Amino acid sequence: MVHYVELPGDRRYPVVIESLAALPAWLERVGLRHGRLLLVTDENIARLHLEPLRAALEAAGWTPRVLVLPPGEPTKALPYLERIYDEALRWGIDRRTPVLAFGGGVIGDLAGFAAATLLRGLPLVQVPTTLIAQVDSAIGGKTGINHARGKNLIGAFHQPVLVFADPSLLQTLPVREWTSGLAEVVKHALIGDPALFALLEERWADVMQRDAALLPELISQAVAVKIRVVMQDEREAGLRAILNFGHTFGHAIERVAGYGHFTHGEAVALGMLAALWLSHRRHPDLPVDRIRTLLQRLPVPGSPDTLDFEALREAMQVDKKALAGRLRFVLLRRVGEAYVADDVTEAELRDAWQFVLESHRATVTS
Amino acid sequence: MVHYVELPGDRRYPVVIESLAALPAWLERVGLRHGRLLLVTDENIARLHLEPLRAALEAAGWTPRVLVLPPGEPTKALPYLERIYDEALRWGIDRRTPVLAFGGGVIGDLAGFAAATLLRGLPLVQVPTTLIAQVDSAIGGKTGINHARGKNLIGAFHQPVLVFADPSLLQTLPVREWTSGLAEVVKHALIGDPALFALLEERWADVMQRDAALLPELISQAVAVKIRVVMQDEREAGLRAILNFGHTFGHAIERVAGYGHFTHGEAVALGMLAALWLSHRRHPDLPVDRIRTLLQRLPVPGSPDTLDFEALREAMQVDKKALAGRLRFVLLRRVGEAYVADDVTEAELRDAWQFVLESHRATVTS
Ligand SMILES: NC(=O)c1ccc[n+]([C@@H]2O[C@H](COP(=O)([O-])OP(=O)(O)OC[C@H]3O[C@@H](n4cnc5c(N)ncnc54)[C@H](O)[C@@H]3O)[C@@H](O)[C@H]2O)c1
Ligand SMILES: NC(=O)c1ccc[n+]([C@@H]2O[C@H](COP(=O)([O-])OP(=O)(O)OC[C@H]3O[C@@H](n4cnc5c(N)ncnc54)[C@H](O)[C@@H]3O)[C@@H](O)[C@H]2O)c1
Repeated sequence: MVHYVELPGDRRYPVVIESLAALPAWLERVGLRHGRLLLVTDENIARLHLEPLRAALEAAGWTPRVLVLPPGEPTKALPYLERIYDEALRWGIDRRTPVLAFGGGVIGDLAGFAAATLLRGLPLVQVPTTLIAQVDSAIGGKTGINHARGKNLIGAFHQPVLVFADPSLLQTLPVREWTSGLAEVVKHALIGDPALFALLEERWADVMQRDAALLPELISQAVAVKIRVVMQDEREAGLRAILNFGHTFGHAIERVAGYGHFTHGEAVALGMLAALWLSHRRHPDLPVDRIRTLLQRLPVPGSPDTLDFEALREAMQVDKKALAGRLRFVLLRRVGEAYVADDVTEAELRDAWQFVLESHRATVTS
Repeated sequence: MVHYVELPGDRRYPVVIESLAALPAWLERVGLRHGRLLLVTDENIARLHLEPLRAALEAAGWTPRVLVLPPGEPTKALPYLERIYDEALRWGIDRRTPVLAFGGGVIGDLAGFAAATLLRGLPLVQVPTTLIAQVDSAIGGKTGINHARGKNLIGAFHQPVLVFADPSLLQTLPVREWTSGLAEVVKHALIGDPALFALLEERWADVMQRDAALLPELISQAVAVKIRVVMQDEREAGLRAILNFGHTFGHAIERVAGYGHFTHGEAVALGMLAALWLSHRRHPDLPVDRIRTLLQRLPVPGSPDTLDFEALREAMQVDKKALAGRLRFVLLRRVGEAYVADDVTEAELRDAWQFVLESHRATVTS
């Protein structure tokens, strides 16, 4: 399956959902010439999936130079960026040498930023290996690294020339990474695609089991939502903000619980419950029970009820400052249609959080 | 005086040549709101010119946070980039906080790259204080830092929202920085403007004395050439390469002599003599004597005749590899018209170098 991201100024690139064996042919199709290629990945992915990819590239005439970094969020930082710079420049690159990011969002964001800034921009190929990366982070050109002061504070927009997602890679994902990614798929359904929402409702058991026959379709539908949003707002001036559905509370939950306690997807799953409550208050026709049931199916281990509400509220104030004075929430008008609201009151926040806790308790005990 | 850089996608920004007192009004005119502003400069400039600028900004309602870095090329590197990141994020910035680069090409390139990558892009104001920066480096959006492996290997394209050049700042420039900048002005004349060439010929004494009445006009004409080239080729895909007139030999000279022995401008002055000889061979109508006389007026202290020609040739081969196999020279068809040639033979290089040495000797003894 192939989707296309089309951007102003005749910039257009394919998002291919297919088996890795087809990657070399696609590299050629997007106009990359054989030669050196800088492949960045992490240790987990290298152990599980590197050799077939390397072999396929070499068979097609490429000379991949492979850089294997430690797995995990701390790798998305300046010292590892510097390591990519050093290795790339030591190996020898020119302006046409592609950077291939083979990994999850961490590798994609980091190697993407290196590609954005080496020789003022090298062609970037995203080969995402996590669900989050396949349906979200590999698409749209946001690249960057974290800083001690916060996540993603340093970065650049740099669109890839090709995104190539092989769903079969996801079979080896740890279960918590899988469900964390599913939270983003559910998010895409809620903000952009009633049909995907229905698919998730109907085939949840297959989804959780990563049914190989279902995955390509699932990913394709989620990808389509992301592409639509990116095409309408490449630089995140407005609409692209709806991708933050569930994130206002979600970020606060991650911060207050301490990074690593909840995965990003788990925090967003809880945040979406809060956003659902706020949406339903404004839009009583919203099928709140159906949505809540779907959100409750996303496993969230851990105890949100130990989090201090005042601390959450404060954490949201920090986000608010960053946005010049307004606490902003992405809300649903109906399934498949989201918008940004800035009329949420402090009083509502407390009730929304109660709704989150009740919904979470109901899952855990059911 | 105001010129405009107009780029695809309705991106347009002014290049203003005026006294610094007018800067706050221009910040407003390009749509920047009062508030925090991150001002990056170096120790020399801070000592000579910071206080009036800071006062003018504060009087206009801005809260400038000033970061003063050591002067010189070694500052254009990762540790100082990191320092800008740390300070900016500690002070607190949001996506609308402007970065103001107050300095020469080093500060402009470094602070420009920080602006390109902080929060994926902050508004950048270039306030160039050297001749090179006013007529060249501050315009066109090339930003970046050096790497141990070579100059400008890491960077990004990030167009400023405003370039503001006050010619009076140039009165305090050390003389060698002044003449180094003049080499770029001569280059702009040769590749793009016969009228500027004539002005330089006729008023050379005033130029060397930095006649305050002449400077705005001189800078304006040189700026116009740079803008025209940038507008036709923002991303340096083709035409922008003509800005490298004199640079193939020039880079080799800098490298072989050891960085710092010749200034960049001095090396380019010598390189332009080589390019002149190569151009004249192909275009016998070129007024080689007039051009040579102008180039000889650019003072180049030091002894190019101690440089080993084989070493120069090798250094050019390195550049050639970087460009995928072809040794490329920018040549003149006539004064004001340049093009890229890749038919220069190795034999010609030796003769061109002899021409450089003879011309240089003739200056020194004259
Ligand atoms: N650029 C964007 O638009 C965007 C959007 C969303 C998230 N992100 C970023 O993405 C990052 C999170 O991405 P992530 O969840 O993919 O994290 P990740 O890259 O850390 O991957 C998660 C874990 O899974 C392992 N892994 C990856 N693929 C595997 C596979 N096929 N089999 C087994 N293990 C595998 C990794 O080694 C890692 O331990 C965050 O840094 C976030 O900021 C970016
Ligand atoms: N981005 C581009 O398109 C581009 C184009 C050409 C050059 N460059 C870069 O520009 C840099 C060279 O620029 P530069 O020559 O301006 O160097 P620079 O910034 O180092 O300035 C030269 C010296 O002059 C001092 N100085 C600056 N303004 C002064 C003033 N008004 N009075 C007294 N002293 C002053 C500085 O402190 C420094 O010591 C190089 O790094 C080069 O790669 C970039």
